Amino acid sequence: MSAPAPARPVPGPRFDADAAERFARSAAVRQGVVRHTDEVHGWLEERRRAHRFRVERIPFAGLDGWSFDPGSGNLGHRSGKFFTVEGLRVTTSTDGRDRQWHQPIIRQPEVGILGILVKEFDGVPHFLMQAKMEPGNRNLLQLSPTVQATRSNYTKAHRGADVRYVEYFTDPRRGRVLADVLQSEHGSWFLRKSNRNMLVEAVGEVPEHEDFRWLTLGQIGELLHRDNLVNMDARTVLACAPHADPDGLALHRDTELRSWFTAERSRHDVAADRVPLADLPGWKRTEHSIDHEEGRWFGVVAVAVQAGSREVSGWTQPLFEPVGTGVTAFLTRRIGGVAHLLVHARVEAGFAETVELGPTVQYTPANYAHLPDAERPPFLDLVLGADPARIRYEALHSEEGGRFLNAESRYLFLDVDEDQAPLQAPPGYLWATPGQLTALLRHNHYLNVQARTLLSCLTTGAVRL
Amino acid sequence: MSAPAPARPVPGPRFDADAAERFARSAAVRQGVVRHTDEVHGWLEERRRAHRFRVERIPFAGLDGWSFDPGSGNLGHRSGKFFTVEGLRVTTSTDGRDRQWHQPIIRQPEVGILGILVKEFDGVPHFLMQAKMEPGNRNLLQLSPTVQATRSNYTKAHRGADVRYVEYFTDPRRGRVLADVLQSEHGSWFLRKSNRNMLVEAVGEVPEHEDFRWLTLGQIGELLHRDNLVNMDARTVLACAPHADPDGLALHRDTELRSWFTAERSRHDVAADRVPLADLPGWKRTEHSIDHEEGRWFGVVAVAVQAGSREVSGWTQPLFEPVGTGVTAFLTRRIGGVAHLLVHARVEAGFAETVELGPTVQYTPANYAHLPDAERPPFLDLVLGADPARIRYEALHSEEGGRFLNAESRYLFLDVDEDQAPLQAPPGYLWATPGQLTALLRHNHYLNVQARTLLSCLTTGAVRL
Repeated sequence: MSAPAPARPVPGPRFDADAAERFARSAAVRQGVVRHTDEVHGWLEERRRAHRFRVERIPFAGLDGWSFDPGSGNLGHRSGKFFTVEGLRVTTSTDGRDRQWHQPIIRQPEVGILGILVKEFDGVPHFLMQAKMEPGNRNLLQLSPTVQATRSNYTKAHRGADVRYVEYFTDPRRGRVLADVLQSEHGSWFLRKSNRNMLVEAVGEVPEHEDFRWLTLGQIGELLHRDNLVNMDARTVLACAPHADPDGLALHRDTELRSWFTAERSRHDVAADRVPLADLPGWKRTEHSIDHEEGRWFGVVAVAVQAGSREVSGWTQPLFEPVGTGVTAFLTRRIGGVAHLLVHARVEAGFAETVELGPTVQYTPANYAHLPDAERPPFLDLVLGADPARIRYEALHSEEGGRFLNAESRYLFLDVDEDQAPLQAPPGYLWATPGQLTALLRHNHYLNVQARTLLSCLTTGAVRL
Repeated sequence: MSAPAPARPVPGPRFDADAAERFARSAAVRQGVVRHTDEVHGWLEERRRAHRFRVERIPFAGLDGWSFDPGSGNLGHRSGKFFTVEGLRVTTSTDGRDRQWHQPIIRQPEVGILGILVKEFDGVPHFLMQAKMEPGNRNLLQLSPTVQATRSNYTKAHRGADVRYVEYFTDPRRGRVLADVLQSEHGSWFLRKSNRNMLVEAVGEVPEHEDFRWLTLGQIGELLHRDNLVNMDARTVLACAPHADPDGLALHRDTELRSWFTAERSRHDVAADRVPLADLPGWKRTEHSIDHEEGRWFGVVAVAVQAGSREVSGWTQPLFEPVGTGVTAFLTRRIGGVAHLLVHARVEAGFAETVELGPTVQYTPANYAHLPDAERPPFLDLVLGADPARIRYEALHSEEGGRFLNAESRYLFLDVDEDQAPLQAPPGYLWATPGQLTALLRHNHYLNVQARTLLSCLTTGAVRL
């Protein structure tokens, strides 16, 4: 991939002065310009019928091309492609307290592309969204980015079908890039997995294939109020959209926010060493699954996918299945009239760099039900027992359906007060504004994928704080 | 470490509007306010006499407390502290071309602090610089940051002397943070090593210990024209100083620059796996050193340090010693009247994330002397054969003298034209402005330590392009 040819022969302004304003205009259009939102629901139903799929659980022995390595016990595909399930030994040290655990982890070192094509119609930016099936989603078909492709998908090495519209993301000359940043995926389940999150504005005409529709940010924001409709890949890209911060005010200066983040990264040591999946301490493998001995966290299972449409044939693959529904929430407060979110500096074993910023609360309650009150995660009970009148947003969303089975979380924004969450936040937590967090999303690995899902509700206008 | 208390009870501006302007004012003061620059030379000479040290090479058997692990052959200290020398197997894949090599690597997982204290005198920001001895520097004593400490140094775990002034960097309430960012160190010699680079403005009086002096940025810039005087730790922190970009013009928009960087990170796969140092393929160990079989790259050696001053006793330690002097250069061009630097997206095995931006040229010529012309590193011969009239800056600087022995590089800025380096740069290279690069230095791991040394010449005003 060669360097981009200079788009201009002489220097011009470093910044896109109008990008945030244009995106805000798109977020304000909630019923559509090209297509009415009602029509979008009809199209999704129609696509659901066109792509009939059936997913069923199978024993590991029923996997085609996948097997456990006789030595390590790692689960991989005979082609060496896709991903492997391996063991991980995690040792963390924080302020002198040490912890160690073992867990299965998905290893998929290639960087994929999650890209959404952008184009103005009647002066309003629209986003080309795809109706896409993923085997792990309970409802299978969800709204996804224009392109969602591993590198094997889109390079010549792969013998499968070409990925539609991918040329806009691999050849910078086909459009104007508005965002392009490496972001982590689930650090508890993936080892150092990053994808490129891209927004590219197309130059010239773009045909609208029947699996794709042009929507405004506001329309996508409306759809984010429905359960399990906008997939994780779409949410993370939308979070990276240029976002205005007209006030430019915050409790902490940006330098202080970054300094606190640097201190959080520095005070945690995390060693994540790959170990054999065979005989992983604390985990047991049966014919159908690999599970934690105490029934917590998640299991590794296998599924067969049968396709009803004539274009795609079936396949089998492993998936990770969490033990319960997650709860993921930002606590919010207006401080001196300015909306703030309480971010949490989280250690996840698979992060490239020890800590990223997550929502205030991000837990699967079932994993903590056995703990005495004093050991329960901070703010979890506050969210579980929230007064409905103070919930600003609530919807159920699925995590990446290509790797996770029925991995759903209840996502919330919850208004709180000084008694519930003081301005002087506890260690590991800090109040930051949406403008500060979306500015960090221009850069790699500041905010985890759960925080990005919630921030996509702000960039699309689904929530206004 | 708890979250910072909000410095203000209500939100205020996110940005330090005047920081870059204040620093520019300091860079313009080249002869000093508190102390004349001539006086600084006298003070350094005086400190050199006060801290007499002798460093001599010893066999590995002469190391005290350090030994090779009987199993792995890794070299470590019996306390488990400091660092270890281990083996690394590096496998890279770029656009389908695979490479593999083995090398020794320094592993030191703790994040240290490199911090410079700032204080205004007569309205001009001054920087508290230390005269500090490091065993690997040819001239031993150089100008270093106020604080240069590993975590073991400054936490209570360590039984050694307190680190002077460290409280300004560990307790945010003691000052106002102006920069605080994790930056990588030499990715060819360190495995995922990062340090916090901090600039903190002190509140209240600060005593000036005899090993320390308050200098303006302009004075430090003058000293950067001397060989081996400003140490690496000082240079990397100074590169992170707020830096003005009044024009705000560039050949590529900031979004395009970051997009190109993201593409460069994505197109390289790097697997760096720790392996035993014993029997490392391509390397041989003798009583005195571990060397590459073909005499290239670097060796691992041991030294004894004898201290003349009464405060510090002697010690022994291993060091890495490169085979020759490096050449490290930014090619520069004025494009439409705006200064640009040609950055190179470099793979170094020890980087946390595959690629960082380095100078145009960063090589030890001795390692490449055997290669035919077509395989020589791009732009290296252009720099080696440069017309002296086009050299804007040239000085010899040492790398980290606590880990590297006689590791020196000739650092240059070299003016070039379209024939020598076209606007449409070759793959892996891009033209960017100093304003764009110093803005990236507010964030982790964009620019490598060699690029930061050269950028410190711009933030201190040593070079004006």
